[in-house]
Amino acid sequence: MSRERLYLFDTTLRDGAQTAGIEFSLEDKIAIAGMLEEIGVDYVEGGYPGANPVDTAFFDKPRTRKSIFTAFGMTKRAGRSAANDPGVQGIINSAASATCFVAKAWDYQVELALGSTTDEHLEGLADTVRAAVAAGKEALIDLEHFFDGYKANRTYALACVHTALEAGARWVVLCDTNGGTMPSEIRDIIKDVMTIAPGDRLGIHPHDDTGQAVANALAALETGVRQIQGTLNGLGERCGNANLVTLIPTLVLKPYYAERFETGITPEHLARLTHISRAFDDRLNRAPARQAPYVGASAFATKAGIHASALLKDFSTYEHVPPESVGNERAIMVSQQAGKSNLLTALARHNIELEKDDPRLEKLLATVKDRESRGYSYDGADASFAVLARRVLGTLPDFFDVEHYRTMVERRHNAMGDEITVTEAVVKIRVDGELLMSVAEGNGPVNALDQALRKDLGKYSSRIEDLELADFKVRILDGGTGAVTRVLVESRDGSGERWVTIGVSPNIIDASFEALYESITYKLLKTEAAQDSA
Amino acid sequence: MSRERLYLFDTTLRDGAQTAGIEFSLEDKIAIAGMLEEIGVDYVEGGYPGANPVDTAFFDKPRTRKSIFTAFGMTKRAGRSAANDPGVQGIINSAASATCFVAKAWDYQVELALGSTTDEHLEGLADTVRAAVAAGKEALIDLEHFFDGYKANRTYALACVHTALEAGARWVVLCDTNGGTMPSEIRDIIKDVMTIAPGDRLGIHPHDDTGQAVANALAALETGVRQIQGTLNGLGERCGNANLVTLIPTLVLKPYYAERFETGITPEHLARLTHISRAFDDRLNRAPARQAPYVGASAFATKAGIHASALLKDFSTYEHVPPESVGNERAIMVSQQAGKSNLLTALARHNIELEKDDPRLEKLLATVKDRESRGYSYDGADASFAVLARRVLGTLPDFFDVEHYRTMVERRHNAMGDEITVTEAVVKIRVDGELLMSVAEGNGPVNALDQALRKDLGKYSSRIEDLELADFKVRILDGGTGAVTRVLVESRDGSGERWVTIGVSPNIIDASFEALYESITYKLLKTEAAQDSA
Repeated sequence: MSRERLYLFDTTLRDGAQTAGIEFSLEDKIAIAGMLEEIGVDYVEGGYPGANPVDTAFFDKPRTRKSIFTAFGMTKRAGRSAANDPGVQGIINSAASATCFVAKAWDYQVELALGSTTDEHLEGLADTVRAAVAAGKEALIDLEHFFDGYKANRTYALACVHTALEAGARWVVLCDTNGGTMPSEIRDIIKDVMTIAPGDRLGIHPHDDTGQAVANALAALETGVRQIQGTLNGLGERCGNANLVTLIPTLVLKPYYAERFETGITPEHLARLTHISRAFDDRLNRAPARQAPYVGASAFATKAGIHASALLKDFSTYEHVPPESVGNERAIMVSQQAGKSNLLTALARHNIELEKDDPRLEKLLATVKDRESRGYSYDGADASFAVLARRVLGTLPDFFDVEHYRTMVERRHNAMGDEITVTEAVVKIRVDGELLMSVAEGNGPVNALDQALRKDLGKYSSRIEDLELADFKVRILDGGTGAVTRVLVESRDGSGERWVTIGVSPNIIDASFEALYESITYKLLKTEAAQDSA
Repeated sequence: MSRERLYLFDTTLRDGAQTAGIEFSLEDKIAIAGMLEEIGVDYVEGGYPGANPVDTAFFDKPRTRKSIFTAFGMTKRAGRSAANDPGVQGIINSAASATCFVAKAWDYQVELALGSTTDEHLEGLADTVRAAVAAGKEALIDLEHFFDGYKANRTYALACVHTALEAGARWVVLCDTNGGTMPSEIRDIIKDVMTIAPGDRLGIHPHDDTGQAVANALAALETGVRQIQGTLNGLGERCGNANLVTLIPTLVLKPYYAERFETGITPEHLARLTHISRAFDDRLNRAPARQAPYVGASAFATKAGIHASALLKDFSTYEHVPPESVGNERAIMVSQQAGKSNLLTALARHNIELEKDDPRLEKLLATVKDRESRGYSYDGADASFAVLARRVLGTLPDFFDVEHYRTMVERRHNAMGDEITVTEAVVKIRVDGELLMSVAEGNGPVNALDQALRKDLGKYSSRIEDLELADFKVRILDGGTGAVTRVLVESRDGSGERWVTIGVSPNIIDASFEALYESITYKLLKTEAAQDSA
């Protein structure tokens, strides 16, 4: 079967900038354009030159090499020509090689929002497209409110499509601006549009207000449309746009689409997807969604014991695509439901090899279950699992013992009469029989304990120099009679590795100390292994 | 048009428990079952009695009144009868009124995972269903791997459906266990299944591995299936299940579905949806997804520019459904005007009446914005908002001042050589010029501070006697150099009212103390109002 070309259009830097709480700097935009090229999208819509200083500066020069650099803007205002509209001219004269102008395909909106007539608006659309084409740009038209407009006035909505194509637009993009259209409506309406327009000049711009932006994009593609607009991680106004990070693997890996459509995405692009999705969240300073399709940390994670044992026999029957194809990893977690095979996999991850009938396995399983019933949860605290396993198996070195600790927080007025808070911690540990005592201040009791604990670890001190606390999470668990506190500590070191340890206690300080202690123990285990192999 | 009944089946407490990082306590399960009844689902699948102590305890007695209380489990093992299978009997003898047994509809999986023959497996399925029906239970069968199984061996997959119905199963649920099936495949396969099974005995259990669980559920419904399985906020193994919080409004509010299908959801259920979705995340100690369809904080939020001004002219043309129908709110982020009217609504909730042009309103708006930029978040801490508003408006009584506090946690060995932790707090406050000093122990520094603070409030002591700490949550904001700790304290009193206060500081103790202090202040405001009106 000869495959038709499908084009992917990214609007992270334009519609994505409408996301609540998102504000891109010029440096952000440059970096994100680079990320988009790394995953192989065809178009990068960079923003709205003239609308704000960042977007104007971004369009000073070309910012992409392989993807088509696209500028967004409004079609010309009523009462002046495109040649005399400074907004339109700003876009046409930018460094973009394609322009995407927005027009309204809902007659009521033209009158309500623009205070213009539908005829004037159609004429503005045509004039703007002609001006862009005359300036040598590839011209796209976003038809805002297309689906709602079609339902209200089919004739006017279709006239917009026709006028744009006649004027020379390469693409007419049908926008589900309010995001409320169902896949079945998308199919029916596009079928009708295709009586006047070829699919290879139509695009779809869905929103996720009913959780179906991806499904709407695919429904449009199946009906005939050949351009899909979306964003990285589904960023965008309100509930966001179609998530390209979800769509791309489906288009490339699922036979139905792969057999019919050719994209610009190579296997190398695809293998970068997990990394780019997470790097993008890092740049936005948000935690990546664990459950994100294909790229989430949980996307190939199995918890259930019954699934895990079969999974080990044949991965392919429990995974709809291979995790490595999108640069992700398989994870089999330890939890209350876990069986022995989960445990063996988890142990192997830490280079602990045991036979399936080793009696210590039973003991470890019982210990994990007992601790999880008391509030521990090892599927998010793999480093604590590694420490626990070695303790139960009798292979944990006796690095150091904690004899005593104390922490104090005091709020008082200083000599100047200002309110101040002083936090201090004292830790007494024993390393090889030697008693070491340290004191430190911190900006909270856990931070002070952490500082004091790491101040002097005797002969181990040099091995934890690059250890850092990356995150700290607390949850109160209602254990029935008495509430307990669960603390998760995320640490990292110079190698870039991150690991999570857990502590559980009625006392938040004890729980935190336990997690800190296990983090250091894990780091010492790591460096021990490195020293052994050196 | 006469409408057909569509049933909603929730599996948050079973498949949702497979989510990485989620571990439900018995109290969690009881509370979540209550939430599910509040939004009107037909079935609540509570877990797998016999699989772990929590699930076994949960099925000791009926836990729902309106929804059908359902137990999950495996069909009987080969080589014994259902009557002699302790797993099957445990489920049948639980307090559940319906049972959902899982069987495998993919021949390869039967051999691979169970090491059983397909004939034995079919016989086990039938025997188990008959045993459940004989015991007076409503019997459901989950056909695991149904869609992949159908593609591999259509005859065996359909034989599973036929066998289950023949044996008396009320529902046969078609599971997309690996989550990789496309909506078009769902349609084609279900069309074929319906040649041997009526749609009103078929269910669908989709997973979100391609971001289409909601679309797959709707595709199945449109093809004829009359039961949809999903979870709160899309919890579930790997990428999660179909999100019922997204599906429910679509089914009830979108004309295409509302005209064809009747559900158990009333407008009152629907109006609780945003609250329940967020309360559920609170219980899991995770931040609600801002971009969640219908219920997210951004779902009806409009940012700068072209949309906001038209939106103000006619909301309905910019919102696919009215936000209040799902208990959510419209937010227009740039409009100072909208900011003020939101604020007036919030103030009215606390019986604070201000004129729209009162200059103090501007000051309060600026204060809220400034504090939110520093990490406060008043959406979830309405009691702190009430206290802040009165402080800015100059109407907060001067109940008491805190002069000094100190808390100390010490881990040491006692005289018996046992490791013990001692926690103590001292608080010095001033009430009407009188200095009151209290000391208390606690099972953690925050608990000790809470005890000490409330020990002696002078003339106010009697007014806080029924105040209790209900919950305590901690989140670290902005993991970077300037990390701050955000503490939310939930309190309750004898009236049954619950309120949430917030504290933000680099020091967890200061943040906690701030939230405790505001909780007591709120309680005193409450009792002040009661005394005034008495």
